[in-house]
Amino acid sequence: KQTLPDTREETVDPSGGIMGRYGFPLTGAEIRYYANHTLSYDQARRTPRWVVEHISSEKLLGNAERKRCRFRPDPNVPVIFSAHNEDYLGSGWSRGHMVPAGDNKFSEQAMAETFYLSNIVPQNLENNAGFWNRLEMYCRDLTKRFQDVWIITGPLILPEVGADGKKIISYKVIGKDDVAVPTHLYKVILAQRKGFPSETLALAAFVVPNRPIGFDHPLTEFQVSLVDLEKMSGLTFFPKVDRTRVPIQNLCNLDSCKLLSSQQFHLYITTRKVGSAGNIFKLDKAMSELKEAGIAPDSYLLKLYADKRKELESKEVSGNTRGH
Amino acid sequence: KQTLPDTREETVDPSGGIMGRYGFPLTGAEIRYYANHTLSYDQARRTPRWVVEHISSEKLLGNAERKRCRFRPDPNVPVIFSAHNEDYLGSGWSRGHMVPAGDNKFSEQAMAETFYLSNIVPQNLENNAGFWNRLEMYCRDLTKRFQDVWIITGPLILPEVGADGKKIISYKVIGKDDVAVPTHLYKVILAQRKGFPSETLALAAFVVPNRPIGFDHPLTEFQVSLVDLEKMSGLTFFPKVDRTRVPIQNLCNLDSCKLLSSQQFHLYITTRKVGSAGNIFKLDKAMSELKEAGIAPDSYLLKLYADKRKELESKEVSGNTRGH
Ligand SMILES: [Mg+2]
Ligand SMILES: [Mg+2]
Repeated sequence: KQTLPDTREETVDPSGGIMGRYGFPLTGAEIRYYANHTLSYDQARRTPRWVVEHISSEKLLGNAERKRCRFRPDPNVPVIFSAHNEDYLGSGWSRGHMVPAGDNKFSEQAMAETFYLSNIVPQNLENNAGFWNRLEMYCRDLTKRFQDVWIITGPLILPEVGADGKKIISYKVIGKDDVAVPTHLYKVILAQRKGFPSETLALAAFVVPNRPIGFDHPLTEFQVSLVDLEKMSGLTFFPKVDRTRVPIQNLCNLDSCKLLSSQQFHLYITTRKVGSAGNIFKLDKAMSELKEAGIAPDSYLLKLYADKRKELESKEVSGNTRGH
Repeated sequence: KQTLPDTREETVDPSGGIMGRYGFPLTGAEIRYYANHTLSYDQARRTPRWVVEHISSEKLLGNAERKRCRFRPDPNVPVIFSAHNEDYLGSGWSRGHMVPAGDNKFSEQAMAETFYLSNIVPQNLENNAGFWNRLEMYCRDLTKRFQDVWIITGPLILPEVGADGKKIISYKVIGKDDVAVPTHLYKVILAQRKGFPSETLALAAFVVPNRPIGFDHPLTEFQVSLVDLEKMSGLTFFPKVDRTRVPIQNLCNLDSCKLLSSQQFHLYITTRKVGSAGNIFKLDKAMSELKEAGIAPDSYLLKLYADKRKELESKEVSGNTRGH
C-alpha cells in the first residue's frame, strides 16, 4: 500500500494506484508550522504564499530582541527551492518580514523563526520602514481593543494593462534563485472582541503597492473586499468563518484603520533610537534629525534624552579614564 | 477538535490550535483525481500546475471520440478560481490540452474529463497543432516499446533578461478570469520496460516555448535535466523514484526522441482527414493540400482515398436522387 503525498483524505485515485506508482509531483504548498506563525511556501517564487499569525496583548510583551536574530534559509525548505541572503544583498530590495519580528517579543524562538527566508519577500525599503511599518504598528495597537487578532500577510503579483490594451503580468526576479519581487503586498486582519450575548468579529483586507507610500495616503485607500483579494490571490481566507451566518463587521468602520501621522511616527522612531543609542554621537544625531524634520519632542522624549545623555556621558568618561 | 485543511499528518501546530481557530488559507493545490489523469490546480493562474497521466498500448485503443467532447469549467474547481470558455474565445490563444484527449480513447468519461478547463492552458495554436502534437504522438508511440509510460505535463513561466540586464518575468493574462498564458510548456516522460533480471526505467524532461516551432527543431533541442526543470517549476517529480539507487536511463539515448518529419506528419494528418471526410469536397481538399505541400501520398493513403471517394460518390448520388 502506498501513501499519497499532499493529498486530502476524501480523494480517491480511480486508477487504483498505477498513476501514482512513482509518486505525484510535490508542490510544497502544505502548511508549515512554526512557534508563532504558520505558512504555505511558494517553491517556484521562493517566497511565502501566505503567512498566518495570531497576536494578543500578552504576546507583544517580552524581551526577545531583533539584534540577536539573523536572516537565513528555512531549514525546512529544500535547498533548491529556498531563497538565500545572497539573492537579496545588493539587489536593491530589502528583506521584508511577512510576520513582523516585533509581534513576537514573548519568545526568542518565535522571533528567530520570523527571520527564516520562508517568511520574507523582496520589499521596497521605504515601504518596509515606512507605510508597512505603520500598518504593522496599527495591527499591534488593535490588541488593546480586541482580545484576539489574526493576521494573514503575503505577496501579490497583479496584472496591469499594457500599451496594446492587453493585460500583462510583469515582475522582477532577483539573485541566483530568481526570488520573485511582488508588485503588491496584502494583509487580512480578523479581530475578535469578547462580548455578551455574542462576540464581535471584524475584518479588513488591504492590497498595498510594493513601493514608497507617503503619509498623504490613508490606509483605507488600499482596502479591498475579501472576495476580490481571494480572486487576485487564488486563496480562500478563514474558511471556518461562516460568512453567511455570522455578521462580520468592517474593521475600518468599527475601529479607525488610521495609521500614525508623520509627527507621531517620527516621534516614535526617535524615541526608539534614543532609548537604544550606544553612544552620544548616535544619541544627538537622532534628536537633530527630529529637529530637522520640524517636529518638536514631547516631554517623554525630552526626559528620556536627558537621562540617556547623563548615562552615556558618565560611561564615556569612565571609559576614557580606563583607556588611559 | 478541529481538522486542518491542506495539511500533512506529520505536522503539528505548536500554537495548540489558536492560530488555526478560523482555518488556514486554502490554496487548492491538493491532488485532484479524474478517470485517467490527476492534477494540481493553480487557483491564481486558472491553469493546472501539473497533470499526470499513465498510458499503455491498451488505453490508446477504443472508440471514444473528440467530437462528442466539449470544453467546460471543471465542476470541482470553485467558480471564482475557474477559467471559462469566454476567457479563451477571441483571445488569440487556443485551448491546449495538457493530458491529450487522444490518450484516452479507451474511455468516453476519461476523454471528456480532459476537456475540463482544469486540464487546459492558453497555447499558441500552431504549437498546439504542430510541434506539441508531434510530441504527443511520440509519447503514444513509446507504448509500443514500453509497457508503462507516465507523463507529467504543465505550463511554465520563465524569466528573461531585460534591456537593463535585470531578470524579469512577463506574461499575458486573458479574459475576465485573468488566465495566465505560459511562456513555455514542460513534459516529463518516464517509461518502463519489463525485463530480467530488472526492469528498465528511462526518463526525459522537455521545456518547449509556447510559440510556433518548425520541423527544423529536433525534440532533443528542448531537453533539460530533471533537476533544472524542478528548480524552474518549483515541483519535485516522481518522488518515489530513488534517483541515487536505481540507474535511470536517458530516454533520448535509449529511444530516439525523434518526432515525425514534415512528410510523415503531413501524410498522417491527411490520412486522418481522408478517413473522416464527410463529403467529396473535403476529401479532395485534403488530397490537394498534400500535393501543394509537395508530398506524395503513400499506397495506404491512395487506397483509402479511392475507397472513400467511391463511398461518398454513391452516397451523394443517392442523396441527390432522394433530394429530387
Ligand atoms: Mg518589515
Ligand atoms: Mg493539444
